[in-house]
Amino acid sequence: MASIKEKVNEMILKGGVFIKFGDKIIKIIIIFVVMKICTRIGYALINRLFKRQKQSRFGFDERKSDTLSELLKSITKYAIYIIGIISILKEVGFDISTLLVGAGFGGIAVGLGAQSIIKDVLSGFLILFEDQFSVGEYVTIEGMSGVVEALGLRITKLKDFSGDLHIIPNGQITKVTNHSRDNSRALVDVEIGYEEDIDNALQILTKISKEVEEENESIVEGPTVLGVSELGDKGVKITIVAKTKPLQQYGVERQLRKKIKENFDKENINIPYPTCVIVTKSGNN
Amino acid sequence: MASIKEKVNEMILKGGVFIKFGDKIIKIIIIFVVMKICTRIGYALINRLFKRQKQSRFGFDERKSDTLSELLKSITKYAIYIIGIISILKEVGFDISTLLVGAGFGGIAVGLGAQSIIKDVLSGFLILFEDQFSVGEYVTIEGMSGVVEALGLRITKLKDFSGDLHIIPNGQITKVTNHSRDNSRALVDVEIGYEEDIDNALQILTKISKEVEEENESIVEGPTVLGVSELGDKGVKITIVAKTKPLQQYGVERQLRKKIKENFDKENINIPYPTCVIVTKSGNN
Amino acid sequence: MASIKEKVNEMILKGGVFIKFGDKIIKIIIIFVVMKICTRIGYALINRLFKRQKQSRFGFDERKSDTLSELLKSITKYAIYIIGIISILKEVGFDISTLLVGAGFGGIAVGLGAQSIIKDVLSGFLILFEDQFSVGEYVTIEGMSGVVEALGLRITKLKDFSGDLHIIPNGQITKVTNHSRDNSRALVDVEIGYEEDIDNALQILTKISKEVEEENESIVEGPTVLGVSELGDKGVKITIVAKTKPLQQYGVERQLRKKIKENFDKENINIPYPTCVIVTKSGNN
Amino acid sequence: MASIKEKVNEMILKGGVFIKFGDKIIKIIIIFVVMKICTRIGYALINRLFKRQKQSRFGFDERKSDTLSELLKSITKYAIYIIGIISILKEVGFDISTLLVGAGFGGIAVGLGAQSIIKDVLSGFLILFEDQFSVGEYVTIEGMSGVVEALGLRITKLKDFSGDLHIIPNGQITKVTNHSRDNSRALVDVEIGYEEDIDNALQILTKISKEVEEENESIVEGPTVLGVSELGDKGVKITIVAKTKPLQQYGVERQLRKKIKENFDKENINIPYPTCVIVTKSGNN
Amino acid sequence: MASIKEKVNEMILKGGVFIKFGDKIIKIIIIFVVMKICTRIGYALINRLFKRQKQSRFGFDERKSDTLSELLKSITKYAIYIIGIISILKEVGFDISTLLVGAGFGGIAVGLGAQSIIKDVLSGFLILFEDQFSVGEYVTIEGMSGVVEALGLRITKLKDFSGDLHIIPNGQITKVTNHSRDNSRALVDVEIGYEEDIDNALQILTKISKEVEEENESIVEGPTVLGVSELGDKGVKITIVAKTKPLQQYGVERQLRKKIKENFDKENINIPYPTCVIVTKSGNN
Amino acid sequence: MASIKEKVNEMILKGGVFIKFGDKIIKIIIIFVVMKICTRIGYALINRLFKRQKQSRFGFDERKSDTLSELLKSITKYAIYIIGIISILKEVGFDISTLLVGAGFGGIAVGLGAQSIIKDVLSGFLILFEDQFSVGEYVTIEGMSGVVEALGLRITKLKDFSGDLHIIPNGQITKVTNHSRDNSRALVDVEIGYEEDIDNALQILTKISKEVEEENESIVEGPTVLGVSELGDKGVKITIVAKTKPLQQYGVERQLRKKIKENFDKENINIPYPTCVIVTKSGNN
Amino acid sequence: MASIKEKVNEMILKGGVFIKFGDKIIKIIIIFVVMKICTRIGYALINRLFKRQKQSRFGFDERKSDTLSELLKSITKYAIYIIGIISILKEVGFDISTLLVGAGFGGIAVGLGAQSIIKDVLSGFLILFEDQFSVGEYVTIEGMSGVVEALGLRITKLKDFSGDLHIIPNGQITKVTNHSRDNSRALVDVEIGYEEDIDNALQILTKISKEVEEENESIVEGPTVLGVSELGDKGVKITIVAKTKPLQQYGVERQLRKKIKENFDKENINIPYPTCVIVTKSGNN
Repeated sequence: MASIKEKVNEMILKGGVFIKFGDKIIKIIIIFVVMKICTRIGYALINRLFKRQKQSRFGFDERKSDTLSELLKSITKYAIYIIGIISILKEVGFDISTLLVGAGFGGIAVGLGAQSIIKDVLSGFLILFEDQFSVGEYVTIEGMSGVVEALGLRITKLKDFSGDLHIIPNGQITKVTNHSRDNSRALVDVEIGYEEDIDNALQILTKISKEVEEENESIVEGPTVLGVSELGDKGVKITIVAKTKPLQQYGVERQLRKKIKENFDKENINIPYPTCVIVTKSGNN
Repeated sequence: MASIKEKVNEMILKGGVFIKFGDKIIKIIIIFVVMKICTRIGYALINRLFKRQKQSRFGFDERKSDTLSELLKSITKYAIYIIGIISILKEVGFDISTLLVGAGFGGIAVGLGAQSIIKDVLSGFLILFEDQFSVGEYVTIEGMSGVVEALGLRITKLKDFSGDLHIIPNGQITKVTNHSRDNSRALVDVEIGYEEDIDNALQILTKISKEVEEENESIVEGPTVLGVSELGDKGVKITIVAKTKPLQQYGVERQLRKKIKENFDKENINIPYPTCVIVTKSGNN
Repeated sequence: MASIKEKVNEMILKGGVFIKFGDKIIKIIIIFVVMKICTRIGYALINRLFKRQKQSRFGFDERKSDTLSELLKSITKYAIYIIGIISILKEVGFDISTLLVGAGFGGIAVGLGAQSIIKDVLSGFLILFEDQFSVGEYVTIEGMSGVVEALGLRITKLKDFSGDLHIIPNGQITKVTNHSRDNSRALVDVEIGYEEDIDNALQILTKISKEVEEENESIVEGPTVLGVSELGDKGVKITIVAKTKPLQQYGVERQLRKKIKENFDKENINIPYPTCVIVTKSGNN
Repeated sequence: MASIKEKVNEMILKGGVFIKFGDKIIKIIIIFVVMKICTRIGYALINRLFKRQKQSRFGFDERKSDTLSELLKSITKYAIYIIGIISILKEVGFDISTLLVGAGFGGIAVGLGAQSIIKDVLSGFLILFEDQFSVGEYVTIEGMSGVVEALGLRITKLKDFSGDLHIIPNGQITKVTNHSRDNSRALVDVEIGYEEDIDNALQILTKISKEVEEENESIVEGPTVLGVSELGDKGVKITIVAKTKPLQQYGVERQLRKKIKENFDKENINIPYPTCVIVTKSGNN
Repeated sequence: MASIKEKVNEMILKGGVFIKFGDKIIKIIIIFVVMKICTRIGYALINRLFKRQKQSRFGFDERKSDTLSELLKSITKYAIYIIGIISILKEVGFDISTLLVGAGFGGIAVGLGAQSIIKDVLSGFLILFEDQFSVGEYVTIEGMSGVVEALGLRITKLKDFSGDLHIIPNGQITKVTNHSRDNSRALVDVEIGYEEDIDNALQILTKISKEVEEENESIVEGPTVLGVSELGDKGVKITIVAKTKPLQQYGVERQLRKKIKENFDKENINIPYPTCVIVTKSGNN
Repeated sequence: MASIKEKVNEMILKGGVFIKFGDKIIKIIIIFVVMKICTRIGYALINRLFKRQKQSRFGFDERKSDTLSELLKSITKYAIYIIGIISILKEVGFDISTLLVGAGFGGIAVGLGAQSIIKDVLSGFLILFEDQFSVGEYVTIEGMSGVVEALGLRITKLKDFSGDLHIIPNGQITKVTNHSRDNSRALVDVEIGYEEDIDNALQILTKISKEVEEENESIVEGPTVLGVSELGDKGVKITIVAKTKPLQQYGVERQLRKKIKENFDKENINIPYPTCVIVTKSGNN
Repeated sequence: MASIKEKVNEMILKGGVFIKFGDKIIKIIIIFVVMKICTRIGYALINRLFKRQKQSRFGFDERKSDTLSELLKSITKYAIYIIGIISILKEVGFDISTLLVGAGFGGIAVGLGAQSIIKDVLSGFLILFEDQFSVGEYVTIEGMSGVVEALGLRITKLKDFSGDLHIIPNGQITKVTNHSRDNSRALVDVEIGYEEDIDNALQILTKISKEVEEENESIVEGPTVLGVSELGDKGVKITIVAKTKPLQQYGVERQLRKKIKENFDKENINIPYPTCVIVTKSGNN
């Protein structure tokens, strides 16, 4: 009877081992099944994501979309395989922690690398959501100016007046200056010599301002003669300011300058060249 | 009897296994229930947050508010699902730690990306709480000047005098210069030649200062003639200073400059052009 | 009898389960009690902190103080609730670690965001403790100059002579230049032509220095004529230096300059305009 | 009977130890087998990777490819050996955690070092995927301009017009300016003296513009005379602008300048040298 | 008999629970005792530290010392209380890990904030230990120059010649230029026109050098005429160099300049004004 | 019989303890053995590494090699000893985790310090592998130019034309400009006065270009006269461009300039000095 | 009999507790012993380190050495005490993890602070090992130039020609320019007017070069007349280059310049002052 007891005990011990081994095999099978299921779910999610994406505002073309979809599926597949294999290895008794240490450092490196891409996408979303600028507007970003040609998921493209195409990752965009949201300001500085009569010049400039206001359609708020803005090296500087439709300030400024030159010519007011007083000293220096 | 004992022992072992399995199934069910509850609570909290937010100082418009609310609900839903699924997978015996390692690196990357948004919101809150500037004030932030058009949760918008709209994330705002909090200073530098009489010039300037003080309403503290501030290349520089209402300094300066020019003309004091002493040497150099 | 034994064993097993469940319910109740107690203690501590704070040197006004107090109480309440709920969830068997991973990344992000505020407060404390500057002193910090208007817990406000209000977070303050701690130095450079007599000029300047020393009350150490500090483009540069009461140097310099001009006029010494030797070459170039 | 019981118990104890030791030996053997298998798989994967890579767009030459393949195989081999040995050491009872601490810091250091390489490769992939620039285009990157000679996995090579070869790691490339994507702009500024007749000059420039438009094949949109863009020191500045095929602007500008000079000579309009008004003062200064 | 066995088993189970509870209460009591002891030890250590500190080279005044001592005692007290309470909470079964996660992030934030203070103190210690500079020496640190007024535990104070007090945290000090450690160099550049005789000028300068060497006590190594150091725009530049006692170079340079001017006047050598060759072209330009 | 049972139980308990102690002693012995073996293996690996290294492209001299080898052996020895001792201490029951915390921070500090060295070596390897530059080529790195004298494992040495030796850690090298990989460009700008005949000048320059092309062996692609590249302050600027063998551009440019001067002299074309139009105003200013 | 069994069971339970307590006391004693041993070993190691250090190349003076040795011993002692006490506290049942969290953050802060010191020492070692520069050589480091006065373990001292002592932490040294390793280059630019005869000037300069080569001992490779290096504003620029012994270039340049001036005087070649063509226009402007 005791021997039976012994056997039982022995069996329990062995059984424990067997159960342990059986348990492990079952676990491994479960892992395989879960892996398959996860892969399917992953594929489905990626397909759905790309289907949705095609209808969204950030337009990828078909070719890129497919490339990316395939890429993501591969990554998903391998990721699931790796996790599955590691799970199995652990069950078998392989020391996973050491492998994970290595993988972890690789992961950190990749994660840090990928981080800037995530930052780009997040920034792109914020720019869109907050409507900081949109395609067709003229903006200045990080010292680069241009008309927004494309506002993508990760990069923004600006086309400069000089024909250059600036490509800026969205994550690099912090401070934005949008020139197309509001009326622009035209500003013309005219200098007259100290020997000219200021009041006369002011009258002529006021007259010109009124003419330009009537002639030029892109002016929003008529040119105003502000007055003497500097007593400088070349003489008295007078400033004229006007509000124009966005980005129309250059044309208005050119028109103003031409009119000023013509009227000053008529009225015999000189726009001064740099002027210099010379004191001669017939020095035996 | 012993065999019963064996069976009992066996039962205990098996029972343990069964109890273990039953226990797991119960746990999984509980997890599902908790997931549902959490989703509800999450939705309720988001609704409440947005209801409150609509009454607060940081105004979102209706459309943005709804978009954001839906977005947050989706995120909450998926977050709870993911945590639930991971909990279940762990119960089933899948090696979660490896999955978490991967998720962790993604999470770090996203967290670091999101960090700048959190910083923006925190900074925006501090600006409001400390009343650093408010809508309508003229400020200079990080080299960009303008009237504050909007002080949002994440970004501040400045409208430049030139019509440009500067958009600055609140987290980028460190040092702020607020020009609208206190009286401004008008400062005019006049230069007269070395051959002029300083005392005469000072008297004229003092007289002008008194006139301007009486005429100009935006002056807070009358223009004061400080004295000889430089013996420079062009002659003696005399400085006049006045306190004006905020941002009115430019008009005061223009008025002062015009008066000075007119009075100096009357009194025959020349504002000098750049002057040069020439020593001629009929050098056979 | 054996059946009793079985039952006992069964009971132990079940009892273990019941005890386990009972134990958990007790634990959950204890957690709730501890949560309530902690909330009370937290509220009391916050009240005490704000009571103390009102008497301290960093003055908040009443309104801000109340807002902050309410805010902190809300944060405390929710923090304790969250920890409590997580503790209960863990008892119930929900996988907390995954939730914590998510929370952790949020926490890191918030922590890093909040870090700059902590740095600001620490820096503010150090500035006060080390008495780097105090309200009313004229300082230069990070390229911004002004009279210290307020030295707060987190920000310092400087009022510029031009009327601008500079707001600088204390954490941004590293190198400080305090202009009000010691006597200032007035420094005047005078240039005379190479054809003038240096010794004569030095004598006149020394005479002026003595006069100014007697007349001007804000001078601490009489103006000293240092001598020939440069043989430059315009002639011989002579430097005069004086020690004045803090920030009085500008007035002293203006007085010195006026005196020099007047005396040089009397003594027929010219302060030179830029001078140029011209060698003419009637070149058929 | 009891003695049997004792023996059994003893056996169980010892057996546990033996089983423990036997278990360990089996585990070690399994580890060796898994190591071998992993090495094989690793080699196969590397071979496949390099086979694929040879057909891809990023072209390595044969020699580099082989070097890299051998290198990766060595790394794989040693990595697996190290993990295996650590697993065995752990089984034997050596304290691995301490070794891992050391290894971890080494790993962090290497990981951080390698991180920039990963960033380079990721950036290179993005440049290609987003088609930011391609071989043969003229671009400006980080202040360096040149024709793209090679766009590699890790570095981009630009050939400057001066013959210099700029080598830039892809990870250093953030903002890109691509000059070859769109038509370029030719811009010529002409200055005429204030005493010249503006309208006459404008007519001549318009005439030249038409001539150049007909003659020059690389012009896309005819040169337009914009008007008076500045009233400067040298006189009236008039600006002419044209759209040309990419990078053809320099030739167009040279042709315009030559024509302008020739026509102005014919029409007796002077392009002014720097002009200066001299007021002489026979000063006994 | 079996029932006794049952009871024993039951007792063991219950006993285990009781022992567990009793054990916990004892542990809590021990924790309280240890807390008290630690507080005492902490106080004693702080007292001892401050006693020692008062005798050390870094002088705090009494008031600061007491403030700091009280502050540290409060921190110690609260720190011990918090750790004690957490230990007790853990015993009671509260989930500490979640609390620690929160505390941890706060701790990181504070730690990172405090880090710069630690860096300051470490740097201050190194400056003292390596004797980089000491009170009274004239140094240039990070673009700020001045006489070292105080070298504190955390900050260094420099007093500028202009009377400004620069306050620099020691951690910001990296590269130091110490002007008081060695003899200074006086350097005077003299320019003579191209039409002058170099050898004559060199002789005169050598003669002056000898005179100054004899007269001026602060010269360590006699002024040496180096020779023609530039053929520049104004003529031939000749350089004289001397070694002087630290910071005495300015006086020596002034003396040299005065002597040179006087001797050149005697010998009829002109120090040239900027010279210009003019080619006149009576152009009908 | 029961007493035997008790004894057995007791024995089991004690035996457990003894076995535990015996087990520990065996473990300690194993640790010692493994330590010895590891040291041997480490030495062997280092010897092998240095043997290989001596044959590789990165040449260390014998002395450095030996120093480094000894150093690495010491490090290995101490590292193994430390790990061994920690393992033993842990077996004895000493709290290792606390020691590890301390060691960890030291390790982090050292690791971060060593990181830059690893980065240097990695960068050096990449430079070699990608053949960015090699010994004897003339390159510009981080604003320093010179002929590559040595490309080491950790540093690169450049010898400037001025004789300076620039030493740059490889990790600091990001953007490289290699001047020796391709033909250089010689560029000469010639200015002629506005009154000269452009076509005549262009003919002469074309003639010179042909002469130089024939005479100078280092020209790859004949000098081409591009045309009018600027209408500037001094007159019409004409640009000539040529392709030369690497780094031969300076000689070609000098030859071109000399020829141009000589031919212009012959043809009576003046290379203009800065020219200025003077308008005199006998102003009673 | 059963009661005996009970007692045994009870004893086992209690014995377990007693053994547990006894075990703890033994452990505490062992910890004390190990602490003492570790302190001794630590002291011995420090003594040995300092003994060795005194014979090494990095010379500390006796006083510093002793200070440092005492400091290190104190640190070692307290470190061991702290670890010991923590180990004992843990045995007693105090919650160490919370204490460690706090200590950890302190440790991180200190570690990060100390990190820069470790970096300094590592860099110093590398500079010595790679022989980047040594005492007495003239180097430029981070914009500071001077003769290396001391190359210490942590800092490098440079003595400027102006007598300033630059102190640079080794960790701040990245790019080094060593001027003493190779022959220096003397470079003299001479300008002659456009109206002079180039060939004549070149002949004279070649003659001078030969003279200087013979006279001056510090020339390594004779001065070579390179030719026309610029057609500039002042005339034709001719460049002469020579190789000299390290740092002897300034003397050679001075000698060359003097000779050139003297010879040009003899040959009637003018070194031109800035030259200007004036076109006068008696404009009624």
